[in-house]
Formats: sequence, C-alpha cells, structure tokens
Amino acid sequence: MYKAKAWSVASATSPFVSRRIDRRDPTEHDVQIEILFCGICHSDLHQARNEWSGMMPTVYPCVPGHEIVGRVARVGSAVTRFKPGDLAAVGCMVDSDGTCPECQAGFEQFCPNFVLTYNFPDKHLGGVTYGGYSDSIVVNDRFVLRVPASLDLAGAAPLLCAGITTYSPMRHWGVTRGKKVGVVGLGGLGHMAVKFAHTLGAHVVVFTGSPQKKEDALRLGADEVVISSDSNAMQKHAGSLDFILDAVAAGHDINAYIQLLGRDGNIVMVGAPETPLPISVFGLLFRRRSFSGSIIGGIAETQEMLDFCAQHNITSDVEVIPIQKVDEAYERLARSDVKYRFSIDMASLRSE
Amino acid sequence: MYKAKAWSVASATSPFVSRRIDRRDPTEHDVQIEILFCGICHSDLHQARNEWSGMMPTVYPCVPGHEIVGRVARVGSAVTRFKPGDLAAVGCMVDSDGTCPECQAGFEQFCPNFVLTYNFPDKHLGGVTYGGYSDSIVVNDRFVLRVPASLDLAGAAPLLCAGITTYSPMRHWGVTRGKKVGVVGLGGLGHMAVKFAHTLGAHVVVFTGSPQKKEDALRLGADEVVISSDSNAMQKHAGSLDFILDAVAAGHDINAYIQLLGRDGNIVMVGAPETPLPISVFGLLFRRRSFSGSIIGGIAETQEMLDFCAQHNITSDVEVIPIQKVDEAYERLARSDVKYRFSIDMASLRSE
Repeated sequence: MYKAKAWSVASATSPFVSRRIDRRDPTEHDVQIEILFCGICHSDLHQARNEWSGMMPTVYPCVPGHEIVGRVARVGSAVTRFKPGDLAAVGCMVDSDGTCPECQAGFEQFCPNFVLTYNFPDKHLGGVTYGGYSDSIVVNDRFVLRVPASLDLAGAAPLLCAGITTYSPMRHWGVTRGKKVGVVGLGGLGHMAVKFAHTLGAHVVVFTGSPQKKEDALRLGADEVVISSDSNAMQKHAGSLDFILDAVAAGHDINAYIQLLGRDGNIVMVGAPETPLPISVFGLLFRRRSFSGSIIGGIAETQEMLDFCAQHNITSDVEVIPIQKVDEAYERLARSDVKYRFSIDMASLRSE
Repeated sequence: MYKAKAWSVASATSPFVSRRIDRRDPTEHDVQIEILFCGICHSDLHQARNEWSGMMPTVYPCVPGHEIVGRVARVGSAVTRFKPGDLAAVGCMVDSDGTCPECQAGFEQFCPNFVLTYNFPDKHLGGVTYGGYSDSIVVNDRFVLRVPASLDLAGAAPLLCAGITTYSPMRHWGVTRGKKVGVVGLGGLGHMAVKFAHTLGAHVVVFTGSPQKKEDALRLGADEVVISSDSNAMQKHAGSLDFILDAVAAGHDINAYIQLLGRDGNIVMVGAPETPLPISVFGLLFRRRSFSGSIIGGIAETQEMLDFCAQHNITSDVEVIPIQKVDEAYERLARSDVKYRFSIDMASLRSE
C-alpha cells in the first residue's frame, strides 16, 4: 500500500480539497499508472454532489474521475502488455468477473460484477474505489488501454468516456458512408459524436437549441445544423435520418426526433434523464423505428476506438485546467459553459 | 359500378345496419372478390366508434373490415395472377403509389400514398373506401393475396391483419430456434404471436394478467406462462429474453418488460396506446436494449406469411358469427371476451 495525492469532496456540498488516499501496491496482474491528465465527465459532478442518490449513493470522501491518461510507473510480475514508461489509459471500469457471458463476449460494461473506477466497492482495500483526480492509480491490466503516442494526451483523456460512449453505438448501428446521422446536443458527448460520424463518412446533422453553436458544429464536421426550436427546419428532415445519437441527459421532446427517422431508423440515448421520457408509440409503429440506449463500450472496443482516433487524429476539444480549478469547472459545467470538455493537468496536483 | 351488400354504421353510437354500397366495376388491373369471411379487428371497433378522431376521423357511413378472405368473381383484362374461382385475400391496404422507395423495397405499409381498406379517400368513386363487412370488394391486383387451399378460410381471415402484424416483426428481429421470446397480452394478436414464435422454434414465455389464460397459452404453444402481477415470477426472467412482442394497446408498465430483455434485446409494440408511454432510459442503457414499433407488413411478406401458415397448418382461433351479431361481438371484444378473433361468415349477409 502507498499514499497517493488526490482531490476529493467530503460531502455533496463540500468544495474539493487535497487529500492523501491509499492505493494498493500492484499485485501480479496490476499496472500502476502515474496520471497525467483526467477529463471531467458530467457524471463526476452528479456523483460528487450525490445527485444519483437513489441508484448509486455517493460514499464520501469521493474522488471522481474516469477519463484517465498517464504513464506506467510499475507493473505486476504477470503483466506482459505494459512496461514502465508506456503511455496508458483507464476508463469507467477497473474490473469485471471476466467469466460471465457478457465478459466472454467483450461486453464488460454489462458484466453483473463489474467495478466502476470510483465510488464502487473496492475488493482490494475495502471502502470504495477512488478515481482519476489523483496523481496515481492501480488497475488490473485487463482494464488498462494503450494510448497511441501520436495523440495529444490532454485531449485523449475524454476519449475514455465521452469517446467510447459515442463511438460504440455508431459502430453497432452501422454509421458509415451514405448514412444520414443526427446528433442531438452539442456538448462533451455530442461534439465527439459529430467528429466520429463525420470521420465515418456519414452526412451529419446537428440539432441544438443554441444558435451560437452553429459555427462550431460546422467546424467539428457537421454538414447541417438545425435549431431544434425551428419546427419548419425540423420538419424538413422528417423521415430522413438513419440514426440519431441523443446526448441530452435532461428531459426533452424525444418524439420530435423520432419523427425524423426513416424506415428502421434508430435513436439512441447515451445520457439518462432522471425521469422517464414519454414516448408516443405511433411514432415508432410507422417506419418500424427504434428507441434505444447504449452505455460506454467494452474494453476491446475502447482500444479499437483509441486506435481509430490515432489513425484519424481525433481527440476531444478540451480546456486544460489545474486541479485547483475543479470547483469552478463544475460550476461552469453545470451551466454547459465549456468547449467541450475540461481536462485536468495532473502536474498541478503533483506540485501541490 | 355495381351495388354490393354491406354492414355499416351511420355514426359513432349507431348499431350496424344493412346497406347497399357502390363498388366500381373492375378496371384492367382490378380483382373483384366475393367475400366469404371477414375477421373483426380491434381497430374496426375504434374506427366504427370514431375513437381515433384525432388522427383518423371516421367518415360515415363506415363499413369496416380488413381481414378479408373470399373467391375471385371477376378480373380485369390485365390481371394474370388471378382467375375467377381462385381463393383470394385482402388485408389492411388496397393500394399504394408503387413508385416510392418504400414500395420499391416491398414496404407498402410505409408508402406515403397508401390507401387503407376502409375509411380512406377512394380515388375511384370519391368518398371513402368501404371494407370487408360486405359480400364483395374490388381491389387492385397488387394488393390481392393468394390463399393456400389447405387453410380453413374462417381462421385464415384474421391472418391478414393479426397474422402479418405478429409475423413480420418476428421475422425482422430474427425470432428462431434458440431464442427466448416473450409475448405480452394473449388476445387476437398475442395468440398469433405465440403460434408463430413456437413454430419458428423459439422458447415462448407468455405474460398475461389473467391466470385463467394459462392453460390456453400452453395449448397455443407457450413453454412458460408468467402472471404479470407476480413480481417474483417476472424477476426470474430478468435480463433473459431476446425479443418481446407487446400486443397490449392500453397503457401499461412497459419498463417492467424492458428489464426482462437481455443484451441487444428488443421489445416491439404492435398496438398503439393512445397516450405516450413513459420509458425509463436507464433500462435501455444497460444491455443496449431497444423499444420499437412495427405495423402490419408488406404485400410480399404477407404472401410469405400465408404460405408459411399453410406449410405449418396455422390459422387464427376464431369464433365464427353471422353478420347480424356484429354489434354483440363488438361489445364482447371491448371487454376482451373472445378466443381469439371473431370471423364473420358472409353467407349470413348474402342470405339477408
């Protein structure tokens, strides 16, 4: 066991403070990573503030962070895929049983025994797992990803959640050249969805409530931008989209988007509104449409996504901040004031 | 133009009365059919009583009926697929543009210019189309189906709507041997779904609110029956179903069924509750589940279904009634008191 520096909250309303936490010494299958950058995901905010108290109550102190990029410091004796000095990354999960049908099929995100990167029971040290707002983390090597050296590391960190969350459904539902793809909501997830859909060759239509985002959407790769309050502009796309990725976690009129789908079209939620969404079944009956959900991706697919990003030079658009500014970043995140992801430079924690 | 006998309602609250209606003489591409049996679909009741006034207001007098089986009486000069004396059938549609991408792909049910069998603008005679509660109908030959001679005609009539509505989504979503399939609601649609899923080789679980339907469900081909109010029994199937066909048109807790789906599982609505259904997105995110809709099927697929039924000796379980008992049948249908479909013997109209 060793001490790591971390940034934690002591309650739902506390500011972040520096704290020493215990990390296990690497067991034979573990990789110890010196964290260089950690992205700030909206779920970090939900969890730090205990906003998911019903489903996943927060255990305090809480150290969030599941968009982790760093450099290997030590490896266990049985680890062959990594050596000290390698770039490495960790996403939303740090373990799973490895034996269930989901794990065997490469869907660790659906394993009934997965272990999330933070605020999840820690079978090694007791208590809960601590995430990436830290200078160091120790993770089973099955859950450590390789980071291609060509990627900007600050911008690569959000790929571990925002990246895989948008890449995975696009691959699963066949986004490719010749398809017309909608992206609803241009935030941390949405801006990655635009980059992926564009790179996969689709015709990309961004739907946003903010006219001022139009220029940015086009820069990111959108072919068209529709202001969602403009019902005429919406109507022009009726029945024409093959696939829509909906990245809006708040309640919104999903039926207006279902109408835009063509035959066998699919709208996929990657964010989860807290309250159920009222779905008009008539909208689904006609054209045999589907309303689906998708959550992150498996480990092999996450590696595939990182390699795809290296091949096409894709990273997240980030605002790099020192860890001392996390509280301020959360305030800005809560009002969607970030283009498009905060990435914490962990040198700022190391020098504390 | 000639006169046909029909059974019609003059308003949303009127009883059915006998009436003479105009039918066109067959044009070169038309088939005139002497109707032998017509099934009673729940949508006949909705339409006759103007219960869909918002979406499809009823034009009176209204002659419902879109589960039509009969014998060819006359054919137009360009008709080659039918000759007088042939068995023939007509379902929910009597025309479409034939040129749109949906028609070209065999999805006439999604054609923006389709013509429904009743209560739809009639481009030949003006007014609206009149359905199968009649001794005769004239239909474009593209919308006339062949009826294999081995099928019981009274039980074959409901295949034209209840049959194709359940067969089509099962084929589309790959119901086959080795799959575990749920059927929610054991009525006109549900009992056909059980027969098809069983015949396709799936393990069939019927979910019903009525314990007294258990024996019948097993007789129809169910492997298991779950009483939907028994949460323990429901829980035993959590995460295990590949596909669920939901035939309940009334509002109900769809989220309880979504939880029963395994990875990439799909629950498909074939009935349309009038009010939106609240869907918990969390239930979709985990296991990448989908909530979909499906409506009847294309003409080629309807023929495929009829041929499949002949091959496997499948018809609907029907209660054959004379047309004079349609009002009574509607009352019973409204309280789900039928096993499982009424089929009108049109000899009773002919002898009036």
